[in-house]
Amino acid sequence: MASHELTEADQGEYHYTVGPYPDPVLHIESGDTVTVETHDAFEGAIETEDDAPSEVLGDYLNPQNGPIYVEGATPGDALAVTIEDIVPRGDQPRGTTCMIAEFGGLTGTDRTALLNDPLPEVVKKLDVTTDGVRWDDERVIPYEPFVGTISTAPELNSVDALTPDDHGGNMDLPDVCPGNTVYLPVNTEGAYLYLGDCHANQGDGELCGVAIEHPTETTITVDVVEDWDLSWPRVESDEFVMSVGSARPMEDAARIAYRDLVDWLVEDYGFETWDAYLFLTQVGSVRLGNMVDPNYTIGASVSKEYL
Amino acid sequence: MASHELTEADQGEYHYTVGPYPDPVLHIESGDTVTVETHDAFEGAIETEDDAPSEVLGDYLNPQNGPIYVEGATPGDALAVTIEDIVPRGDQPRGTTCMIAEFGGLTGTDRTALLNDPLPEVVKKLDVTTDGVRWDDERVIPYEPFVGTISTAPELNSVDALTPDDHGGNMDLPDVCPGNTVYLPVNTEGAYLYLGDCHANQGDGELCGVAIEHPTETTITVDVVEDWDLSWPRVESDEFVMSVGSARPMEDAARIAYRDLVDWLVEDYGFETWDAYLFLTQVGSVRLGNMVDPNYTIGASVSKEYL
Amino acid sequence: MASHELTEADQGEYHYTVGPYPDPVLHIESGDTVTVETHDAFEGAIETEDDAPSEVLGDYLNPQNGPIYVEGATPGDALAVTIEDIVPRGDQPRGTTCMIAEFGGLTGTDRTALLNDPLPEVVKKLDVTTDGVRWDDERVIPYEPFVGTISTAPELNSVDALTPDDHGGNMDLPDVCPGNTVYLPVNTEGAYLYLGDCHANQGDGELCGVAIEHPTETTITVDVVEDWDLSWPRVESDEFVMSVGSARPMEDAARIAYRDLVDWLVEDYGFETWDAYLFLTQVGSVRLGNMVDPNYTIGASVSKEYL
Amino acid sequence: MASHELTEADQGEYHYTVGPYPDPVLHIESGDTVTVETHDAFEGAIETEDDAPSEVLGDYLNPQNGPIYVEGATPGDALAVTIEDIVPRGDQPRGTTCMIAEFGGLTGTDRTALLNDPLPEVVKKLDVTTDGVRWDDERVIPYEPFVGTISTAPELNSVDALTPDDHGGNMDLPDVCPGNTVYLPVNTEGAYLYLGDCHANQGDGELCGVAIEHPTETTITVDVVEDWDLSWPRVESDEFVMSVGSARPMEDAARIAYRDLVDWLVEDYGFETWDAYLFLTQVGSVRLGNMVDPNYTIGASVSKEYL
Repeated sequence: MASHELTEADQGEYHYTVGPYPDPVLHIESGDTVTVETHDAFEGAIETEDDAPSEVLGDYLNPQNGPIYVEGATPGDALAVTIEDIVPRGDQPRGTTCMIAEFGGLTGTDRTALLNDPLPEVVKKLDVTTDGVRWDDERVIPYEPFVGTISTAPELNSVDALTPDDHGGNMDLPDVCPGNTVYLPVNTEGAYLYLGDCHANQGDGELCGVAIEHPTETTITVDVVEDWDLSWPRVESDEFVMSVGSARPMEDAARIAYRDLVDWLVEDYGFETWDAYLFLTQVGSVRLGNMVDPNYTIGASVSKEYL
Repeated sequence: MASHELTEADQGEYHYTVGPYPDPVLHIESGDTVTVETHDAFEGAIETEDDAPSEVLGDYLNPQNGPIYVEGATPGDALAVTIEDIVPRGDQPRGTTCMIAEFGGLTGTDRTALLNDPLPEVVKKLDVTTDGVRWDDERVIPYEPFVGTISTAPELNSVDALTPDDHGGNMDLPDVCPGNTVYLPVNTEGAYLYLGDCHANQGDGELCGVAIEHPTETTITVDVVEDWDLSWPRVESDEFVMSVGSARPMEDAARIAYRDLVDWLVEDYGFETWDAYLFLTQVGSVRLGNMVDPNYTIGASVSKEYL
Repeated sequence: MASHELTEADQGEYHYTVGPYPDPVLHIESGDTVTVETHDAFEGAIETEDDAPSEVLGDYLNPQNGPIYVEGATPGDALAVTIEDIVPRGDQPRGTTCMIAEFGGLTGTDRTALLNDPLPEVVKKLDVTTDGVRWDDERVIPYEPFVGTISTAPELNSVDALTPDDHGGNMDLPDVCPGNTVYLPVNTEGAYLYLGDCHANQGDGELCGVAIEHPTETTITVDVVEDWDLSWPRVESDEFVMSVGSARPMEDAARIAYRDLVDWLVEDYGFETWDAYLFLTQVGSVRLGNMVDPNYTIGASVSKEYL
Repeated sequence: MASHELTEADQGEYHYTVGPYPDPVLHIESGDTVTVETHDAFEGAIETEDDAPSEVLGDYLNPQNGPIYVEGATPGDALAVTIEDIVPRGDQPRGTTCMIAEFGGLTGTDRTALLNDPLPEVVKKLDVTTDGVRWDDERVIPYEPFVGTISTAPELNSVDALTPDDHGGNMDLPDVCPGNTVYLPVNTEGAYLYLGDCHANQGDGELCGVAIEHPTETTITVDVVEDWDLSWPRVESDEFVMSVGSARPMEDAARIAYRDLVDWLVEDYGFETWDAYLFLTQVGSVRLGNMVDPNYTIGASVSKEYL
């Protein structure tokens, strides 16, 4: 159970697409711990509230660390990634939220393509510490960090870092937080783990598309779970088990998540299918991760008290 | 501030469509309290686990009490309905959940029209008390009742009781529970309030389409809020304010709810529009009411600690 | 086989909601012909290109003639309405198209609720004759009129005239044109037929939400088809049979239409289900009626040469 | 203007993902013609009607020829690919359509994830000649072939061959047929052109997900259009210009296509934006390419008689 560091220098070039094509930047064994220096989603390009995103940002967003090669991980296995700790790093104000043209939940986009004028560009820079995020003179938001984007590589595809799908990706799910474990399907030898995009806090749906983005030191422990053939990511905490779906329209994300949770209850918790379906009707919980990315993400969960 | 009763006998015929056309069954003043004998969503037709829904149910579901005429309620006002208490009534087992052909979240339906065989019909009858709902030998679900369907009448339309929309309706939102207040737009003189469809408990999304349906005595207090021109229903508790949207696809329900919540923060809480949009990105909460009705329902809320 | 007239004077008040509640304005027998004076979708309120829709329009759009009571029509029957002729009426410029705030295919709406500024209001008035519609100095659009909205009444509901659903309604389907027959389910004694909203021409999807609206004299023949229990409207021409679905998201409209067409091929044309499914994959045609109304409308059809 | 051949032997391994990572199999100049031996979408694995797709198919479908490197093609240019000819090849019965579990327009899928049993597997093999496709004793479908999948490479991503998006891909658009030209954005030096998946015929939407798939000799001419920065594919025939959008839900595909067509009319045909919007409302045409792939595809077009 070794501990590794993956600093900015170790990483070198960050990745804006997630696939099996780049060379791994680190090789680890199952059970190892890695501390990763993540960038914010803009690779630090938005430095002041006067920066216009359209001028300072390039064509790609959401830089990822990795790929991390996990020895022994083989297609048909799952990767269990436990988030141990997330600590902000970098100079203050190191938190950034903003409005980006044709991106977000309450605006026309490149997909919901409309003729309305885009919203204005607005940038807000924020001091972020583990004590919280000061929004304005009256409001302090607690520091409740999580990993916004975490993926294994697809077998053949290379997916841009903004898109969540069955490989994980940009799920923007606040439950991928310290203390919890995310399970990802292994699609290629070594799994090729990528991560980045840590948020200091985020509401359900990540409404405007940009949470409180900040650079971090994120520590994870990675285990290989042999012969666990996942269709979609799953999350586990002390309190619940959660299945995660990412799709459009949003109801398909909910269907994926809940169907996978029914399957999980049947496979591992002794439920019969229709009983699981009826039971989740009464006690299932839904988390809307994002309503802004190329696929929307929903987590469906059930309390462990019932399992 | 009078107290009224609306018993089964007072109600007479229950309504399966919500509009301005029937005669009111009760006239009340703003501030009055009413105790209503609601039926379950099947008007009691599913009596045993051997009853096949396709055989015992008629063409319409979800019987509603009302309309209740509220003196002084005028278009442009809002109705504030506080849920005071919900108590189960009727013989045990008085709780019902079941699977109905081509209805539910994980099946093809009359709208998501497919060629797959329908799911089987399964009925589960449950003892319901204020102490909880015994699911099986190992699991007891807490009694956390709420009003599944509550509406004012549209001005011209008459909407079937299964459909939630901007008049309220079959939102299946667990936040419409004792202690909380739901605000509904007044579209016609007297508001014409309808309610019914109380659930003993329900998970997010009401997955199979049928929560723990049960007949109740539900007590509400009704106030007219003058000159509050709501576009969509809203809910208020001690902890949060919530806007509610109902639409398909599900992302439109989320957009409606969050846009209305932005508007609310601007109108009543001193926020500037883009600041509200950015702030809700960090601290907004989303509740999925239903993913099974003709419109899906989402509530977007924010904690009062920030207001 | 009598011929009737339903003039503006006969009609009196036009209807903005379609249901079983108003008194019929005309009683006819199966096989009768009716010539109806339809209004345009604005009941003539937009008279010049200087009229701002937001100022001259009221809360409701799309006035309907009817209800016409068809003797002998009983739930479980279908109504076959053949469009015999559509002739423009009224003073020139009698055609109107325009942009209405938060309505249309390329703008945020009350459902796709966004924070973008609405599009500007633009009105275009057009001379309409049976020879065509002069758009500008270079372009003349042929006069290819059809009935935009045609409905039987639902049994209990009253649906606003802007919404298409399984009762017909605002389908905006150019195939409901002279020479063709639309079949509608009968949900109530007498069927209660409504129609209006004739378009001088319209592209697929009715992009901005407003075709070339114009008042007309529309002649229809109405037949009762006994014991034909339709789930959704259907259209028949000399060349094709078409099933019509209206829903959101748009794929559900397509699913409804194609599933109904599979059913039709099996019921009336000797196909086996899977063969119909595979065959329509190769030769089915899709018409997008509207992408702007509360439900989107799609017609799925197959050439009669294959039947 | 050279002529090239890209035979099965030249191609070697076919590709199931479309990106910038493989080595080009052919280098051509702008203006050159290439005759390509395409496989069917199953790489020939379904040989008889007794073959069960679930047993004979691997994890990936839709083999692609390419990448073809086009000298001089640079990001910001467009590629104009004219379909010159499509001729069936291979032994009879060389046409295949079939039903694949959890894939198709009228079934639950991996995205519209449901608990219904999947549809049965059905395979139909067909003789395909340029004279037509004999469906059964009574029905012959005309041979109207087109290229189902055609793409340039994204800059960073590698997209599975089943997915259409802004790079082209699996659009299943019958308008990509002999005589017509498809325009694709160039995202990388050399454009990296891929194609395959020719259909002998197909109805709108490709209902069951599998058209009449067949191996072909397809001849294309490829031209570089300098400094034409396309957001989405476009198609041109003698009769019309068409913009193509691929997305979910289906209304977003329609919005993309129509917005791009508005832009095209403004950029190249002298229209003012609102006039283009209003005009397309009256005369725009919509083609539903597919309602079965990971993104649905819609083409929006306008007749050249108006341009």
